[in-house]
Amino acid sequence: MDLLADKFSQLGVDNAPGQEVLQKTAELKLLGDPVPGKAVDFSHGDVDAFEPVPGTLEEFIRGVKLGGEQAYTEYRGRRIIREDLAEKISAFTKTEISPESQIIITPGTQGALFLAMGSMISPGDKVAIVEPDYFANRKIAQFFDAEIFPVSLDYFCSENGAGVDLAALESAFKAGVKVFLFSNPNNPTGIVYSQHEIRAIASLARKYGISVIADQLYSRQIFDRREYTHLCAVDNPPENLVTIIGPSKTESLSGYRLGIAFGSAKMIARMEKLQAIVSLRAAGYSQAVLKLWFDEPKGWMEERIAAHQRIRDDLLLILNGVDGVKTRATEAGSYLFPQIPALIVTIEEFARILRCHANVTVTPGTEFGPQFTRSFRINFSQNHQAAVAAIRRTMEMVNRYRA
Amino acid sequence: MDLLADKFSQLGVDNAPGQEVLQKTAELKLLGDPVPGKAVDFSHGDVDAFEPVPGTLEEFIRGVKLGGEQAYTEYRGRRIIREDLAEKISAFTKTEISPESQIIITPGTQGALFLAMGSMISPGDKVAIVEPDYFANRKIAQFFDAEIFPVSLDYFCSENGAGVDLAALESAFKAGVKVFLFSNPNNPTGIVYSQHEIRAIASLARKYGISVIADQLYSRQIFDRREYTHLCAVDNPPENLVTIIGPSKTESLSGYRLGIAFGSAKMIARMEKLQAIVSLRAAGYSQAVLKLWFDEPKGWMEERIAAHQRIRDDLLLILNGVDGVKTRATEAGSYLFPQIPALIVTIEEFARILRCHANVTVTPGTEFGPQFTRSFRINFSQNHQAAVAAIRRTMEMVNRYRA
Repeated sequence: MDLLADKFSQLGVDNAPGQEVLQKTAELKLLGDPVPGKAVDFSHGDVDAFEPVPGTLEEFIRGVKLGGEQAYTEYRGRRIIREDLAEKISAFTKTEISPESQIIITPGTQGALFLAMGSMISPGDKVAIVEPDYFANRKIAQFFDAEIFPVSLDYFCSENGAGVDLAALESAFKAGVKVFLFSNPNNPTGIVYSQHEIRAIASLARKYGISVIADQLYSRQIFDRREYTHLCAVDNPPENLVTIIGPSKTESLSGYRLGIAFGSAKMIARMEKLQAIVSLRAAGYSQAVLKLWFDEPKGWMEERIAAHQRIRDDLLLILNGVDGVKTRATEAGSYLFPQIPALIVTIEEFARILRCHANVTVTPGTEFGPQFTRSFRINFSQNHQAAVAAIRRTMEMVNRYRA
Repeated sequence: MDLLADKFSQLGVDNAPGQEVLQKTAELKLLGDPVPGKAVDFSHGDVDAFEPVPGTLEEFIRGVKLGGEQAYTEYRGRRIIREDLAEKISAFTKTEISPESQIIITPGTQGALFLAMGSMISPGDKVAIVEPDYFANRKIAQFFDAEIFPVSLDYFCSENGAGVDLAALESAFKAGVKVFLFSNPNNPTGIVYSQHEIRAIASLARKYGISVIADQLYSRQIFDRREYTHLCAVDNPPENLVTIIGPSKTESLSGYRLGIAFGSAKMIARMEKLQAIVSLRAAGYSQAVLKLWFDEPKGWMEERIAAHQRIRDDLLLILNGVDGVKTRATEAGSYLFPQIPALIVTIEEFARILRCHANVTVTPGTEFGPQFTRSFRINFSQNHQAAVAAIRRTMEMVNRYRA
C-alpha cells in the first residue's frame, strides 16, 4: 500500500475550497485584535446572495413526479434532456452537437473533468496543464499517474489574451504530451484566452495529435462585452476535444450537482463507460432542472452579469489602492487572483489567520500552482456590501502581516 | 492510447442494467408471434410501484430552502447529517461509528464502491471477488488494473449460508490478495451469508491483513426473519473494513443518488480525498433527504418487506413449475437469479429477444461472471401483477427457445 499512501498524501483537501472547517487553528500567529465583520466565504459563490435560476425547484419537483423514467436515466443522461441541451449548447457555441453521441450529463463539472481525464490518460502518459489553473487538474493527473508538464500563464504581462506560453506548449507537445487541459476563462484569474491563443492551441493540438479538455465552466459570464472564442468552434478544432460546461456557477445550481461534457463521440462513449462504474449517472431528478438552463427569464442573465461586474469594479478599487497589491481585472466569471506583498507568514497560514481573525475565507494561491506563494483566489459571487467589507478586512490583515 | 482503448473495450455498458435502449435489435432470431403484455423492466426496481419514503420530497425542498449551507457541504457530507447517520447506522449494525472520521456520503452506493476500491487498489494489486457478484466489482477492479482472483459462491448447494468457497478464499489471500470485496445479501442471488461465513471471512482477513469492502446495500430488506450478520459487528472485524449501504433500493431513493460508506477512518479519509476530484460531494440538496432514512413512518418498512416477500413467493411458484428451471429463493433484497435450461441462443441474445418480443427486460447472467451463461437476474421490486405476468411471458419464451 506504500504507493497508495504516497499518492493519497499528495491528494490533500484541507486547503481546498469548502474544506476549511477541517483546519486546526491552535498554533496560528495572531497579531492584534480580531477585525470584526460579517463572515464571507470567498472559496465559492454564495447561492444565498445570487439565487438559482427562478423556477428551478419547480422543475425538480416535476422531475420527481415523473417517477421511474426520470430516476433511472441512461448513464449519459435522459435522452429528451440531452436533445434539448445539444440544441441549446450548439446555438451557444455555434457548433453542431449530436445529442445521441456527443454529449453526457455528469455529477457536476468536477465529474465531467474526472471522467474526461480518466478516458484519456494511462499511467505514465504526459499531460500538459496550465499554471495557474484549477487545482483539481493537477490532482486528477497525479491520481492517474500522469507525468505533468506545466505551461505558464503570464497573466500580468499579457495585455491581449491570457498570456499562455505557446512556445512552452509546443515544446511540451513535442516532448510527447498526449493530453492538454485548460480552463477558459482561466480559474483562478478570470482571464479569457484571445482568439489568437485559442486558434494557436487548436493548430498545435492538430499538428501533434493532442487530446484536449477545455473547461469552459464560466464561459457565459463575460464582462465588458469581451470577445470569447470557443475552441470547439474554430475552423480546425482538435480531433479529440471534450468541452466542459455546467450550471453550478453563474446559474447557482451547484446544489444539484450537474455538469455537461460534449465533443468527441469516442471520448464521450468512454466517459459513459467510466461513469457506469464511478457513479452510474447524474442524479436523475436533478437532470430535470437542466430544462431552464440557457433558457432563463428574459434579462435575468444580463442583470446577473452586470451585478457581478459592479462587485468586481468595487473590489478592484480597494485592491488597487493597497501598496504592493497587484490584480488583473476579471474578464469573465467570478474570480480574482490578487498578488500581495511578501508577508511574515506563508500564504496558507495567512489564509487560516484571515479566517480565524477576520471572518474571511480565501483559497491560497499554492492550490493553483506551487509558485503562487503570494496570491490568493476569491470568488466574488457574494453579497456586494459584505464582499467589499471583507476585502477591506483582508487588506487590513495584509498590512498587518507585511514582511 | 492502445492500453486505454483496450481497457475501455472491456468496460462494456450495452448489456448493463438500464442501458438496454442502446441495443440493436435488427438481427434477432425471433420465433413465433410476440407475447404481448405490459412492459416490465426487471433490470432495476420500479419506483412507481414502490414509491420513495413518504416526506422525501418535502425534506429535499427544506434542504433547498436552507440555501448555501446545504448546497456547499464538506466533501464527505454535511456534518449534522453525518452525525444523524452515524447514530442511526450504529444502532442498526450495533457498532460505534464516529461521525467525524468514519462515515462519508457519496453519489450513490456506486460512488462509494468506486471510491473505496480507488482508495485500496494500486495497479497490479491482487483483488478477490466473488462469482456471481455485482457486475461493477469486476469492472472497477479492471479499471484500476488489478489482478482478479475469483472465488465461487456455490449458492445452489449450500443449505445454510451463501456457499462461499472459504478454502478458495484462503488460497487467494495466501497468494497475495490485498483486497476482498463482496455483497451481502449477494447481488444477483439475494442470498445472505451465514454468521459462520462472516466470522470466517473476518478471521481470514485479519490473519492475512486483507482490506475488505462489504456492500450491504440490501441489508435492511431481510425475509422470513432470517438472521443477518454485519461483518463490522463481529468480535474481530478486519482492520481495514469499509461497509457500504444506501437508500436507493428498499427505500426507492435512487433518483437522489445517495450512498454511504463507513468504517476504517484511514480509508474514509482517502475516499474523501478521492471524492474531491471525482465529483466533489453527493448533491448537497439531496443529502437533506437522508434525515428520513432509518426513520421511516411506523410500519412502513415492515409492510414494504412483506409486499416484496409476497412477490418473491408468487414468482418462485411460477419458476419452480418450469422444467429445467432452478432458482434459490431470495433471502434478502429484491433479486432472483434463475438458472434456465440450455437454449438455442446465448443468454445475451435471449435477453434482447425477450425485451423485443415479450416486453420484459432482464440482465444476462454473464454480467455477474463469465460462467453464468444460463442465468439471468431480475429485480422483482415491481408492480406485483405485472411482475407475475412478465415472468409467465419469460417462461413461455424459455420454452420456445429450449435447445
